[in-house]
Amino acid sequence: MDNPFITEKIKNLLPRYRQFLQDYVYPIELKVVSNPFRQSLPVLQELRNKARSEGLFAPHLTEEDGGPGLSLLEFAQISEVLGTSPLGHYIFNCQAPDIGNMELMHEFASSELKEQYLKPLQRGEIRSCFAMTEPGFAGSNPLQLGTIAVRDGDEYIITGHKWFTSSADGASFTIVMAITNPESSNQYERASMILVPLPNSSVELVRNISVMGESGEDYLSHGELKFHQCRIHISNRIGPEGKGFALAQARLGPGRIHHCMRWIGICERAFDLMCQRATSRSLSGHHMLGHQQIIQFWIAECRAQIQAARLMVLHTALAMDKQGAKAVKEEIATIKFFVANVLTDVLDKAIQVHGGLGITDDTILSFWYRHERASRIYDGPDEVHKSSLARHILKSYGMKFERP
Amino acid sequence: MDNPFITEKIKNLLPRYRQFLQDYVYPIELKVVSNPFRQSLPVLQELRNKARSEGLFAPHLTEEDGGPGLSLLEFAQISEVLGTSPLGHYIFNCQAPDIGNMELMHEFASSELKEQYLKPLQRGEIRSCFAMTEPGFAGSNPLQLGTIAVRDGDEYIITGHKWFTSSADGASFTIVMAITNPESSNQYERASMILVPLPNSSVELVRNISVMGESGEDYLSHGELKFHQCRIHISNRIGPEGKGFALAQARLGPGRIHHCMRWIGICERAFDLMCQRATSRSLSGHHMLGHQQIIQFWIAECRAQIQAARLMVLHTALAMDKQGAKAVKEEIATIKFFVANVLTDVLDKAIQVHGGLGITDDTILSFWYRHERASRIYDGPDEVHKSSLARHILKSYGMKFERP
Amino acid sequence: MDNPFITEKIKNLLPRYRQFLQDYVYPIELKVVSNPFRQSLPVLQELRNKARSEGLFAPHLTEEDGGPGLSLLEFAQISEVLGTSPLGHYIFNCQAPDIGNMELMHEFASSELKEQYLKPLQRGEIRSCFAMTEPGFAGSNPLQLGTIAVRDGDEYIITGHKWFTSSADGASFTIVMAITNPESSNQYERASMILVPLPNSSVELVRNISVMGESGEDYLSHGELKFHQCRIHISNRIGPEGKGFALAQARLGPGRIHHCMRWIGICERAFDLMCQRATSRSLSGHHMLGHQQIIQFWIAECRAQIQAARLMVLHTALAMDKQGAKAVKEEIATIKFFVANVLTDVLDKAIQVHGGLGITDDTILSFWYRHERASRIYDGPDEVHKSSLARHILKSYGMKFERP
Amino acid sequence: MDNPFITEKIKNLLPRYRQFLQDYVYPIELKVVSNPFRQSLPVLQELRNKARSEGLFAPHLTEEDGGPGLSLLEFAQISEVLGTSPLGHYIFNCQAPDIGNMELMHEFASSELKEQYLKPLQRGEIRSCFAMTEPGFAGSNPLQLGTIAVRDGDEYIITGHKWFTSSADGASFTIVMAITNPESSNQYERASMILVPLPNSSVELVRNISVMGESGEDYLSHGELKFHQCRIHISNRIGPEGKGFALAQARLGPGRIHHCMRWIGICERAFDLMCQRATSRSLSGHHMLGHQQIIQFWIAECRAQIQAARLMVLHTALAMDKQGAKAVKEEIATIKFFVANVLTDVLDKAIQVHGGLGITDDTILSFWYRHERASRIYDGPDEVHKSSLARHILKSYGMKFERP
Repeated sequence: MDNPFITEKIKNLLPRYRQFLQDYVYPIELKVVSNPFRQSLPVLQELRNKARSEGLFAPHLTEEDGGPGLSLLEFAQISEVLGTSPLGHYIFNCQAPDIGNMELMHEFASSELKEQYLKPLQRGEIRSCFAMTEPGFAGSNPLQLGTIAVRDGDEYIITGHKWFTSSADGASFTIVMAITNPESSNQYERASMILVPLPNSSVELVRNISVMGESGEDYLSHGELKFHQCRIHISNRIGPEGKGFALAQARLGPGRIHHCMRWIGICERAFDLMCQRATSRSLSGHHMLGHQQIIQFWIAECRAQIQAARLMVLHTALAMDKQGAKAVKEEIATIKFFVANVLTDVLDKAIQVHGGLGITDDTILSFWYRHERASRIYDGPDEVHKSSLARHILKSYGMKFERP
Repeated sequence: MDNPFITEKIKNLLPRYRQFLQDYVYPIELKVVSNPFRQSLPVLQELRNKARSEGLFAPHLTEEDGGPGLSLLEFAQISEVLGTSPLGHYIFNCQAPDIGNMELMHEFASSELKEQYLKPLQRGEIRSCFAMTEPGFAGSNPLQLGTIAVRDGDEYIITGHKWFTSSADGASFTIVMAITNPESSNQYERASMILVPLPNSSVELVRNISVMGESGEDYLSHGELKFHQCRIHISNRIGPEGKGFALAQARLGPGRIHHCMRWIGICERAFDLMCQRATSRSLSGHHMLGHQQIIQFWIAECRAQIQAARLMVLHTALAMDKQGAKAVKEEIATIKFFVANVLTDVLDKAIQVHGGLGITDDTILSFWYRHERASRIYDGPDEVHKSSLARHILKSYGMKFERP
Repeated sequence: MDNPFITEKIKNLLPRYRQFLQDYVYPIELKVVSNPFRQSLPVLQELRNKARSEGLFAPHLTEEDGGPGLSLLEFAQISEVLGTSPLGHYIFNCQAPDIGNMELMHEFASSELKEQYLKPLQRGEIRSCFAMTEPGFAGSNPLQLGTIAVRDGDEYIITGHKWFTSSADGASFTIVMAITNPESSNQYERASMILVPLPNSSVELVRNISVMGESGEDYLSHGELKFHQCRIHISNRIGPEGKGFALAQARLGPGRIHHCMRWIGICERAFDLMCQRATSRSLSGHHMLGHQQIIQFWIAECRAQIQAARLMVLHTALAMDKQGAKAVKEEIATIKFFVANVLTDVLDKAIQVHGGLGITDDTILSFWYRHERASRIYDGPDEVHKSSLARHILKSYGMKFERP
Repeated sequence: MDNPFITEKIKNLLPRYRQFLQDYVYPIELKVVSNPFRQSLPVLQELRNKARSEGLFAPHLTEEDGGPGLSLLEFAQISEVLGTSPLGHYIFNCQAPDIGNMELMHEFASSELKEQYLKPLQRGEIRSCFAMTEPGFAGSNPLQLGTIAVRDGDEYIITGHKWFTSSADGASFTIVMAITNPESSNQYERASMILVPLPNSSVELVRNISVMGESGEDYLSHGELKFHQCRIHISNRIGPEGKGFALAQARLGPGRIHHCMRWIGICERAFDLMCQRATSRSLSGHHMLGHQQIIQFWIAECRAQIQAARLMVLHTALAMDKQGAKAVKEEIATIKFFVANVLTDVLDKAIQVHGGLGITDDTILSFWYRHERASRIYDGPDEVHKSSLARHILKSYGMKFERP
């Protein structure tokens, strides 16, 4: 059936992105993710230039920032296409964590910070990272933070230990979440966000954490950072003091749409690979894998799930465009766990359909199987979102909860 | 978030239906379904009259037939509300199988049949049934039929054995599917649909089949019928000879939307009961059932599933309105199995949250648990729809199948 | 493979029970469960007499009580066979709740109570019931009880409200759990068990609760009872005062083995029906249901699950025989939820394989589908057993819990 | 409860193996699997020597071959302990594929082959591999083989393409499955097994296949091999000509027990890590992860599943000891898919409980998550075993199948 979410603006854009990925990205993706990332920087830069020359670069930017000025709903659909390759968002400069930092700074950073950091980030000249999660505290309780920023004159002195600071290796700055107002009576108003230029003699990149067998490097890495009494001028703070938590929430809203659409892109690619395999692998003579009833069931179930997931995310994006992030708080929690589980299931079935081939690195499935196991954990594990959604609902029935 | 499917036409209708059910239907439903159905005919007739006087009766009818002339998408949303009680559709005269027969006859019946049968059916003066499924053949293969209608002059002589002819007990006519053209080279063009007035000396109601512990009666029953050389004038045929299969397909399209939206109504009611229970049942002092994390998870998972199901069905209805039934063949198959499984899951969890109470007939959950186990079976079991959907998809990858 | 749990004692018994069910019980079971139970008492009495004359009656009794003196492990295997029909245990007089009462009284009742109540119960001359669950309190917290027994001289005055007192209708006595020592500092030592003869002018059978569409009667019923200042002599107490909770626990241990083995019997029967259907139902010509891959998968998955369930229960029974109930506390919790879920799944698949027939009462599946939904609720819902098992385990890792 | 499978022979052995792993293996395993395997050969050799000196080396060998002469049931329990580390079986020289080759050669190889190859293999002086799976054919149909061995005088000339020849890199020989009798009327009697010494100028190690992000090397690798007209003397054939399929079946029987017990060892280790995490990770103050109800549920469900899996495998091993492999054909198929799915589920939950830490390589969970995804694929995917089991069962109901 026709796509009811299509608009004039993206009607022509979508096939161009699809074609770009088909022609230039799919052919190189296996090689890129199988080798140290820095080896591939030249070829990726070339593709970024190509994207720019075709007017496809940075599709998330507003018109004033040189982008196409898409709505969230429109960008979401492009994001799905980019998600069909692990390199899609990177090549078009709308990859996490940079896109989140761009959105955050666009809204909340001072014009000086925008000039010095946001502009080159939007142009793809530098990369950035976001330092929030800490090894010592459960990420599911964002109020718990060990990193502190003590005010000393016009400076903050930041001390703390972070990890899962994705893409820290090679980043030109990080935005760090730190306690600035430990005495605030409102526990949601104790932390602030501070931009810290990198590399920095007081910021130690302890390691690129080995995740699912790979330490990675550069963009494809997850850093463990230590802040050793790192002095930063207070003008590097983003937004008001004590508002770090509110900013993090603001950053997460569209961030979850982005992740979810990327996951749906992965699902569609995996689904396509599954169907190709089902129609090309013979079990015996002309009896193909796809003639097996169980394979058909998996295909049908995956199609249904992906369709459900997409509709939920696009409806949430649409509502966010129209009513703002607050109106879709429940939906944002819902899609986070719903889509992550669809992703898990689709990848698992796509691999099973591929048999031995599915666990090799001869297809892209293995990369996602390994690296998207995290989808049910990062930005809050399923468990946090389920409880959060249920509490919202039960409160509407008059129920009281101790924790907010 | 706001409902993006709302229209001016139903903006005011929806709350009126909701209120009607709240005020008049929920209070009597347990009593009605716990007693022989005929006992309740007077009170139900009263409610039908009330519905009529409030202009809410028969919301599925076109304006020319005296209805509000809703689109499928609009009616779907009213259907969800009616589905929140097992009596909802009946009271408003849009219950299966009558609604399907009305839609079929509206489109394909002769003006004489319309005058004689459709009109009183639309006015709720009579009831009807639809005789397709046969005990001797797998319903999953609709081409297999044992019932034959042999042409003899201007009459058909119908012989055959049907079951799951829902609501046959007390119906004023049945539409029967029978083989009229056994020699047709096209196996899809062998059957026709013939309207048979009831009661009829050549049509035996063998029994109201005992289903899930209840034989039921009148509207709430599933008949087993035998046609003993039943003679029917050929003018009682609906549509052209040999087109029974095409008509059945046409009947099923909106029929699946209707079922799915009714199921979603059930889900919403079960969800509401589950939340009420969670917030009112104490485990110990002020620690309520809803404080339990697992209960919260079930609530969150059910909410997500119901939301996914509704979006899928409404989008299918929207596309059917705009592009016709053919354009949504895959979606129709998809929602049938997807929503039936959501229904199963939501009912199961709602019962579990109620504990011992959940298996009693002190709530309406038990009725649905018993009678909607069939949702994964009737109108084609899940298995048929999954294979059908997958074959559609795999054909687009160039795959060939022996069976169509 | 050979059954490693077989013993000389049951080697010959098992086939005799199987034959008895095949010859006399399966042929009548549908009729019995579809009609008011009292109608069938004569035919059931006949079968009980036949069982007695063949030396098969009451297989759970010790030799001193006139039984075969089987170990728990041996009886478990007979119990599985009896479980293949809803009438099996009843005909052989080892049905719940009577078997639990017999075990309880055998161990804890005074010789007077034994003479007056236990003996005729063992002989199948009377029936009994067990009044523990209360509508006002969560059964998952057995310490919460509203029923009190106030001491007045040599009598208790019992006041309270119970439900799910299975088989109360027609029972000659109930054992009631009531608070006798509300002030006890040990919350586990506040309740006692008291035998109350029935019918009794102070004990009101409010109703046979309608469960899954059926109020039932006599043995096949679940009573709601009110105790209106019912005076009972203290010699009717079973076990010491304040030890009701300990006795309930003692009663539950073997009780769970009994339930689980009965469920496995149901699973085996459903499995057999499923295979019979798969091999006899044609989809098209010689292509049978059982040639469908998904049907094969269900058969394989059910076989695996049933096998797992049986091994777990028999091992628990074996250990209980050898080491006593305390040693298998974790296993008892484990099998309760594990087997109940296997049962749910096997019944669901067996029904689905039967299609429309599966939801009718033409097979016994529908009876179990309705009445064994309770298996995940009675004797503690899954949720209670899972938490209980996990707490046992986590305590061995040094963890502390507020509630015991 | 007590372990009913314990014997005198392993009563003392089991704790010694447990202690050895605790003291020497767990502390080094993360480092070994995170580095090129050859770097660790010295330290592993040291541990092998230690194992030998403690009399724990090669626990699978018969007494005549210098081993303890354990039954399959006894070895299975040791195998579980070894499975708790990815290095366990390797250090004790009972790792796949070598153990399978040892069992095969012990039973079927000529005394010359035994002397030259089996003995040093048993002593851990050399390694071996097994070349069966081919990239061009579905492994689920073992009758399809593209590798041929053409007889030329006293030699076979072997030509073919294999992959997933695990541990080929560095192996001293491979046993290759090749078609020797293409014209045999019995399709099960066309292949033979031939021992090919390595390295060999006619056998090309195309690559160590990159699996789940790692090409690996030496023992920890999966080779892709090409046989280029490789000439091998017929005395290198193992067993009679044309009996390759029968030998492969014989090799698989105990092989599946070995895999399943190793998986259960993994489950137990993951379970232990999960419990440790649950009891040590604070969510807020003294409220630990293990106080969360959902974590408790996962712990309970995992415990139940692992227990079920172990009982099924040990019972199968016991029956194999007593009745031989043929008697447990159904059980062997059953445990393969049942245990692989338990493993998948337990690993997934253990990772989720660890949150971000779970996807890092700071615990061993990630290694298994990646490398045991294959458990549901190798030695026949779940789908093959389910169909196979179901066909066995349905045949007992008289059903006929075209394929055997």
